Amino acid sequence: MAAAVRVLRGAAAGLTAAAGRRALGSAPPGVAVGRGGRGSRRAPLAAAGALGGLGLWLWRRQAAMAASEEDEEEKELRQRFMAPPVSGLRELRRRRRELRSRMELLIMETQAEVCRALAALDPGAAFAVDTWERKEGGGGISCVLQDGEVFEKAGVNVSVVFGQLSEEAARQMRSRGKSLKAKDGKLPFCAMGVSSVIHPKNPHVPTMHFNYRYFEIEEADGTKQWWFGGGTDLTPTYLNEEDAVHFHKTLKEACDKHDLKLYPKYKKWCDDYFYIKHRGERRGIGGIFFDDVDSPSKEEVFQFVKSCAKAVVPCYVPIVKRHCHDSFTPEEKLWQQLRRGRYVEFNLVYDRGTKFGLLTPGSRIESILMSLPLTARWEYMHTPPESSKEAEILEVLRNPKDWVH
Amino acid sequence: MAAAVRVLRGAAAGLTAAAGRRALGSAPPGVAVGRGGRGSRRAPLAAAGALGGLGLWLWRRQAAMAASEEDEEEKELRQRFMAPPVSGLRELRRRRRELRSRMELLIMETQAEVCRALAALDPGAAFAVDTWERKEGGGGISCVLQDGEVFEKAGVNVSVVFGQLSEEAARQMRSRGKSLKAKDGKLPFCAMGVSSVIHPKNPHVPTMHFNYRYFEIEEADGTKQWWFGGGTDLTPTYLNEEDAVHFHKTLKEACDKHDLKLYPKYKKWCDDYFYIKHRGERRGIGGIFFDDVDSPSKEEVFQFVKSCAKAVVPCYVPIVKRHCHDSFTPEEKLWQQLRRGRYVEFNLVYDRGTKFGLLTPGSRIESILMSLPLTARWEYMHTPPESSKEAEILEVLRNPKDWVH
Repeated sequence: MAAAVRVLRGAAAGLTAAAGRRALGSAPPGVAVGRGGRGSRRAPLAAAGALGGLGLWLWRRQAAMAASEEDEEEKELRQRFMAPPVSGLRELRRRRRELRSRMELLIMETQAEVCRALAALDPGAAFAVDTWERKEGGGGISCVLQDGEVFEKAGVNVSVVFGQLSEEAARQMRSRGKSLKAKDGKLPFCAMGVSSVIHPKNPHVPTMHFNYRYFEIEEADGTKQWWFGGGTDLTPTYLNEEDAVHFHKTLKEACDKHDLKLYPKYKKWCDDYFYIKHRGERRGIGGIFFDDVDSPSKEEVFQFVKSCAKAVVPCYVPIVKRHCHDSFTPEEKLWQQLRRGRYVEFNLVYDRGTKFGLLTPGSRIESILMSLPLTARWEYMHTPPESSKEAEILEVLRNPKDWVH
Repeated sequence: MAAAVRVLRGAAAGLTAAAGRRALGSAPPGVAVGRGGRGSRRAPLAAAGALGGLGLWLWRRQAAMAASEEDEEEKELRQRFMAPPVSGLRELRRRRRELRSRMELLIMETQAEVCRALAALDPGAAFAVDTWERKEGGGGISCVLQDGEVFEKAGVNVSVVFGQLSEEAARQMRSRGKSLKAKDGKLPFCAMGVSSVIHPKNPHVPTMHFNYRYFEIEEADGTKQWWFGGGTDLTPTYLNEEDAVHFHKTLKEACDKHDLKLYPKYKKWCDDYFYIKHRGERRGIGGIFFDDVDSPSKEEVFQFVKSCAKAVVPCYVPIVKRHCHDSFTPEEKLWQQLRRGRYVEFNLVYDRGTKFGLLTPGSRIESILMSLPLTARWEYMHTPPESSKEAEILEVLRNPKDWVH
């Protein structure tokens, strides 16, 4: 199990540091952080009391300089991120040209951007921020807002994990065509990503999911395989054409900057991927989805992924604003709960990310299953009446539409 | 998809017959059946109007005799079953010595016994009875009581399906050690069983599940593999030791009649099987579970399965009676909902029966997923306080207990 450093709500000061990484001294608006961890980097300062005279003066001066550098760093961290990056800011700066570092900064920035945008929409609620470590290597930062006014459950997670790929996970990857040559059964890997599911309360505000990730595996002969994956998709309880068009158009614009072929290809991939086979319907009205993308070049794919990540807030926030005060009936809430049930079915039965998480030893289960809604419902043989609003969305889930042409 | 013959609630007369099988003319107490199907066996009688004189008299006499035989059969059906058996009562009588027929009668009787016992506990509610057919072969009878006073959702299903094993299902069976030699990729199979999940409303009444099934596969060289599987297990929201002991003792008595080794073996198997690996806890406090049982002989295993099936009502009904009027707090209801979430996790991620169902073409999804609760809840990072009643049940789910020694 992951060594979770639970950061409590409400305690904005008196902060925590886990194993050499400093948590933020104070929180951005809408963010509550708190105590936890296994010892703070501030502790060694207490040892200064043992020195005297010049030694003490020198020590204080050095400490003050270091503290001022730290303050600067802390300030920057506070402005940019929800918590210190898993790999440490200094390390990321040192390796700033490496794609791994740039991707880690991108997922950290995306997390903060999305959390702040959502917190601004739900002023009474706060994101709880947890930093956690994985015994086998790496860790993550989970930001979860639960039971707010606007959001039932909103989670935005970052994880950066590395170590040896489990036999199960390797089998799963090979089954989709990867040739992974292990050395003594070992396959060193590094996986990082930002992943989010937002379940709003109002049935007229759709659920949104996005995930952008980067993967590296080192094979027996030393060659490195790498690929990017990700996507953003929308799951409305009721169909609103205007919202659907806005969502897809925003994604299309992000894709079109890189290659006009991308949006149609990844839109179809999304419809195919989020398919609940046993129900004969899609989870939602789609968006974009891609996986195993390793061409034309690392740099170009990274730039494309960056555009997608930057499109998350403009895709979704206008839709939330437009509908979060819509009135709704108990029957509409009930239909939302039944659709939540289908969401659970997809995530637990089919989702590749969830499966990979459940199969990876030391995974942080609470972060993986954060995607599940706060509440869900299953009624035996529920069928909406013909020509109802419920039947209208089902029709689109059974036969995906083209929203931008 | 299954060709479902939906039998509506509330319409107790004007009955239905699907493809040569007659549905019951009137329903036992607590059971609502209704219209559906594709034409009734009564329809040909209308043709009699075309005859006259002696011919008409003779026809009427024959028809009256046939009708009286049918009335007798219908009466028997009504007393014994929830709906006509999939294989037809006459066919089952003709092949009465065959194990397949005896097993089908046992699962039909068990379904009726359990439905009547539950309906008696929840007098305001009624079981909806659906009979359905599977295009690829066979069919089933689903009895579901939803949103009653005592039961949130109670389903008791019978299915008798046959045809060719799907490649996916065969792979799953081979992966647990079966050597199945196919002829031109084909493996004729027959699977039948009774399966039930009872989710009560009151958090002091536990959820109960049972399933008894029989499987036959014909290999390329004509040899038949056969086995039985099944079990009965309890999932309380709160621990009640007296209930746990009663439940396990009743199961132990059923097992002990056949072999003293069975209860300990199948009790352990149950604890091992209903394990939610990613949570490190069991779904409930267990009971018995077994699979692939094909010794000492077909007859002896059948007699054991019969004893287990007969033990379902005495296992569970006294517990429901004892607690269905217990008072409870909103916090207790909330904990029940969180435990329902874990139930969903087990069933969708691990349960072999659910997986087999989702992989078998033409399966009736509504009957398979009837096992899911009406409502469930997932809270991020929910941890009950130490020494609470919630922590008490978690402890038992993490470290199964011996209840009968």
